[in-house]
Amino acid sequence: MKSSLDRNYFKKQAEELVAKMTIEEKISQLVYTAPAIPRLGIPAYNWWNEALHGVARAGTATVFPQAIGMAASFNTGLMLQVASAISDEARANYNQYRKYGETQQYQGLNFWSPNINLFRDPRWGRGHETYGEDPYLTSRMAISFVKGLQGDGKYRKVDATLKHFAVHSGPEKIRAGFNAEPTPQDLRDTYLRAFHYVLKQADPSAFMGAYNRLLGEPCCGSPRLIEQTLRRKWGFEGYYVSDCGAICNMDSAHHVTSNRVESAALGLNSGCDLNCGSGYASLEAAYKEGLVSEETITKSCVRLFTARYALGMFADDCEYDRIPYDTVCSDENRAINREMAQESMVLLKNDGILPLSNRADLKIAVIGPNADAVNVLLGNYAGTMDRYTTLLRGIQEAAAGRVYYQKGCNISNPNPSPDDGENPRSAQMVAKLADVVILCMGLNPKIEGEDGDAGDKTTLEMPASQWDLYTKIKETGKPIVYVNVSGSALNLSDMKENCAAVLQCFYPGAEGGHALADLLFGAVSPSGRLPVTFYRSLDDVPPFADYSMEGRTYRYFKGEPVYPFGYGLTYNPVREEWLDEQTVLLTNEGKTEQKWTVLRYTERKGVRELCAFEKVLLAPGESRKVTVRDDEWAADTFDSAYFG
Amino acid sequence: MKSSLDRNYFKKQAEELVAKMTIEEKISQLVYTAPAIPRLGIPAYNWWNEALHGVARAGTATVFPQAIGMAASFNTGLMLQVASAISDEARANYNQYRKYGETQQYQGLNFWSPNINLFRDPRWGRGHETYGEDPYLTSRMAISFVKGLQGDGKYRKVDATLKHFAVHSGPEKIRAGFNAEPTPQDLRDTYLRAFHYVLKQADPSAFMGAYNRLLGEPCCGSPRLIEQTLRRKWGFEGYYVSDCGAICNMDSAHHVTSNRVESAALGLNSGCDLNCGSGYASLEAAYKEGLVSEETITKSCVRLFTARYALGMFADDCEYDRIPYDTVCSDENRAINREMAQESMVLLKNDGILPLSNRADLKIAVIGPNADAVNVLLGNYAGTMDRYTTLLRGIQEAAAGRVYYQKGCNISNPNPSPDDGENPRSAQMVAKLADVVILCMGLNPKIEGEDGDAGDKTTLEMPASQWDLYTKIKETGKPIVYVNVSGSALNLSDMKENCAAVLQCFYPGAEGGHALADLLFGAVSPSGRLPVTFYRSLDDVPPFADYSMEGRTYRYFKGEPVYPFGYGLTYNPVREEWLDEQTVLLTNEGKTEQKWTVLRYTERKGVRELCAFEKVLLAPGESRKVTVRDDEWAADTFDSAYFG
Repeated sequence: MKSSLDRNYFKKQAEELVAKMTIEEKISQLVYTAPAIPRLGIPAYNWWNEALHGVARAGTATVFPQAIGMAASFNTGLMLQVASAISDEARANYNQYRKYGETQQYQGLNFWSPNINLFRDPRWGRGHETYGEDPYLTSRMAISFVKGLQGDGKYRKVDATLKHFAVHSGPEKIRAGFNAEPTPQDLRDTYLRAFHYVLKQADPSAFMGAYNRLLGEPCCGSPRLIEQTLRRKWGFEGYYVSDCGAICNMDSAHHVTSNRVESAALGLNSGCDLNCGSGYASLEAAYKEGLVSEETITKSCVRLFTARYALGMFADDCEYDRIPYDTVCSDENRAINREMAQESMVLLKNDGILPLSNRADLKIAVIGPNADAVNVLLGNYAGTMDRYTTLLRGIQEAAAGRVYYQKGCNISNPNPSPDDGENPRSAQMVAKLADVVILCMGLNPKIEGEDGDAGDKTTLEMPASQWDLYTKIKETGKPIVYVNVSGSALNLSDMKENCAAVLQCFYPGAEGGHALADLLFGAVSPSGRLPVTFYRSLDDVPPFADYSMEGRTYRYFKGEPVYPFGYGLTYNPVREEWLDEQTVLLTNEGKTEQKWTVLRYTERKGVRELCAFEKVLLAPGESRKVTVRDDEWAADTFDSAYFG
Repeated sequence: MKSSLDRNYFKKQAEELVAKMTIEEKISQLVYTAPAIPRLGIPAYNWWNEALHGVARAGTATVFPQAIGMAASFNTGLMLQVASAISDEARANYNQYRKYGETQQYQGLNFWSPNINLFRDPRWGRGHETYGEDPYLTSRMAISFVKGLQGDGKYRKVDATLKHFAVHSGPEKIRAGFNAEPTPQDLRDTYLRAFHYVLKQADPSAFMGAYNRLLGEPCCGSPRLIEQTLRRKWGFEGYYVSDCGAICNMDSAHHVTSNRVESAALGLNSGCDLNCGSGYASLEAAYKEGLVSEETITKSCVRLFTARYALGMFADDCEYDRIPYDTVCSDENRAINREMAQESMVLLKNDGILPLSNRADLKIAVIGPNADAVNVLLGNYAGTMDRYTTLLRGIQEAAAGRVYYQKGCNISNPNPSPDDGENPRSAQMVAKLADVVILCMGLNPKIEGEDGDAGDKTTLEMPASQWDLYTKIKETGKPIVYVNVSGSALNLSDMKENCAAVLQCFYPGAEGGHALADLLFGAVSPSGRLPVTFYRSLDDVPPFADYSMEGRTYRYFKGEPVYPFGYGLTYNPVREEWLDEQTVLLTNEGKTEQKWTVLRYTERKGVRELCAFEKVLLAPGESRKVTVRDDEWAADTFDSAYFG
């Protein structure tokens, strides 16, 4: 699936157009709120658009599982379908907006997704935006996502943007002025690896620079990172956009420049073409003071208009102009969403209670603050869906017997609010009445998220309010199916010991409830695998601000996790017989069809790491030989090209 | 439906039990958190329980339409079913709690409902807790509600409490220290009338005293109101409870006493048996200082234990002990709820667009901040339901064709939040794509409610954020079905002029979306009528704190309302031929069955007022003679008995 996009063709058009602009006009186009230039027939354009797991902030759109959950699917083919559905909806929106002359924020065709930073520390609030802790898994999921967004036509379907380049991964509180200092080895083998591989495999239109400094240079003002590494060594031809406010941070937080004019000059001279924020409002002053040349301004402007031409914005033969609005939240996209949600959930323990036998006399108690909550379907950077199926609702719709519900406690406030139905005693009561308890606990996007919104976690334990309820439910002696809803690892050791089953379901999207019920009642067998290590305690990992990978993630962690990276149970036993290093004979020894991910690890520089995987669908009883290799990944050592 | 309850039988048991108590033990029982007296076998009991429109704050329970919406049904038979369902759920909860030895707040059998204050001013934040602005409608709805709660068995099923006695109806901000000064005529003909009639017709177990003073005396410390009027003149034999904190307010807000001890003494000596709040913590001191007698303490204590005996709390033959927990949120209660929700909605305008023809090619745009909101299903003093059907969801489930959804704007914040899907342009866009727009706007319980929670309204206009969206949608020229979600009157004059249909749906309960869809697509024809006047402007009504009825409610308002009290359209034309003053021949001239409320007004002291109504179900084409009279109401002049 190679794009037939001819960048030089569009670049030539861009050069001709930009050549007609005054210097002021060119400068005006380098900010995310690019104004119209009526005399040249250029409409206004707003470059700020989001689509992390569905078109976001643009009114109603399908909300797919949060990125971390999609990573757990290990299903690159399904990820491609998801991303194609997202770009369909994005184009449908754009077409409709354009019909009415709209050019506002969140109505454009370039998207500031995906987030492919490594989820190197379980505390990181934005970790759930990523594809987890492994560079290879991250790369594969991102390649599919970028390809699905960008399409393979004459024009770009929509632009994908790899972010945050580079190394960025918390702590949130100090992100604006933080200097990340990874070792050369970690920079190459961990922090830069996915960016490089995805660039080579999927040709993303854009990169977004991170807030932090990297080895002393701010990532939106680093000639070494942007010009030397990304453009010259790696061959990137697209445009580079600053994270929002990152140019201003250079003087206000990093203190590497002494004023805003210098910051703007540093950004543009370093190769940062487009500014989200207000920093490039000082570009004209920088130009007048001789700090930036017209040539540099022209170069960035051409890059941005190359992208706009490539998106078909000035063409009348763009194949995507015909995508109708009815694509948005279509039944087809809902079906893809449900399938992705099923595969995003990871079965961590099962004493045999699952799948539940869906008998009319089976009494089920669904309990917990995440059972009927909508915001845990979403995660952050989410759209608004026209129909949500909460975990509770999905179980109610599927269950043949009586379903009791009690919220039981607040997600984090230790004082239950009776007005909001929070009553631990009532919860214990229905647990006693039931044959099985489905306990829906964990976190939500108000507890873990971006700075200013939720921030980082400070513990791997669930909030105390939930521990109290959990303890009360355990006291009933009823079998518990523990459904952990979170975008990151929590300490599940008590649940591993005391619950009948444990299911990690991340933030599963608008169809989350249907997907959960599909798994609980066995309509579908679980097939997800953990994209991150589930540690026992923060005592087991290094300090958050330490960017050394030593002791972090499954590749470098020396301790015993509660559940390791790659872990995930199924209802059907699948036998793996390796015939040689890259060939495995799989046999589904169960009675229903089973999706199965084969993971192949390799030893590289003394570290065991994932180097290939394949997910296949096996009929009951089916045996199949599967080749598990990725030669391009193996070849992508980029030893001399990697940095600087 | 007369209760077979023998109050004297229970009173005798109470007297015997109370006789065994020490003075300290008796005093301890006069607060809402009554402690156990183990030596006498008395368990602890918490008197604070709520059930305004469903068991509230006790975990999960069926949430029926808010009281104001149930009043709009004018259906006393259905109200009886609703209240019976509520008391079933209350008993089911209680039985289950008791099994586990629970005696906490919101787990008891006496309920501080209904609120039968008159909704005399459209600003009052708590107005949606009431049955509207008419004393007769209020009385009839309350009689059914009380009977449904209390049952007609040997024991009380649960206790109902009439509140807030008396006159109480805002402003919220000054309620704790306010002195209401109605004219003698308004006191009799408006403020006290429903309390008296419901007492006579339904024998409620309890009254709750209001926060305000009435003609100078605090309502929880008024010998004239409680002893002279309620007990002696009206013959009330039950118990009287203070609103929460009202005893303390006597010294802290009303300044009619100089300290807490005096307040406690004034309350008890006035006949207020039970204290919600901390005021009666000073009763022991008042007794020691000789401010209250043991006889008075004993009398109140006996009243409270009479109630507990009557509720069967100390018996082993109570018929309600067998109500199983599965009653809570049963399918049967859900069906009653849906029917009440259908009848609680009032069709105010219909140019013929309704019912919508449910064709597969009909494109519907559902737009507005109340379309997919759960809190507008609830109103205040609500429980937590196990399954909510939002207005949007109900329409989606019922529609054969495509349903577009956009939230469009915030309920009140003028800045739309894209993160929450608030995008006016997207809303306008789907309106343009649709054949019909269903616009769900209005208020929510965070905008109108109790002091400390939401407070009073200051305008009859919808929030400016919604006006902007409304204007944008009108600009599309598409036919609009305007669904006004509010617990009180708003100025709907623009919608009356410019929308194709206008539907008032109050806060319609957990089944609200199903009910709305039932009406929109014509599965059921609307049959609700307005329980309050819909004014054009606050300029048309007197100042809020003025308790004169002059110029207020349909009985005294001289202006032209946008929609009058009692107004409500149907899909089927029904002909009313009055054969004499009390007999009407009804003919359903339409093609589907139609519920129809006949209203009979009378002129009394120069004022036209409702004096009887009947709601009947008419088959298509059916003619039926109906008698519309209420002799007991007509006889209930209580001229000399009314006060003081």
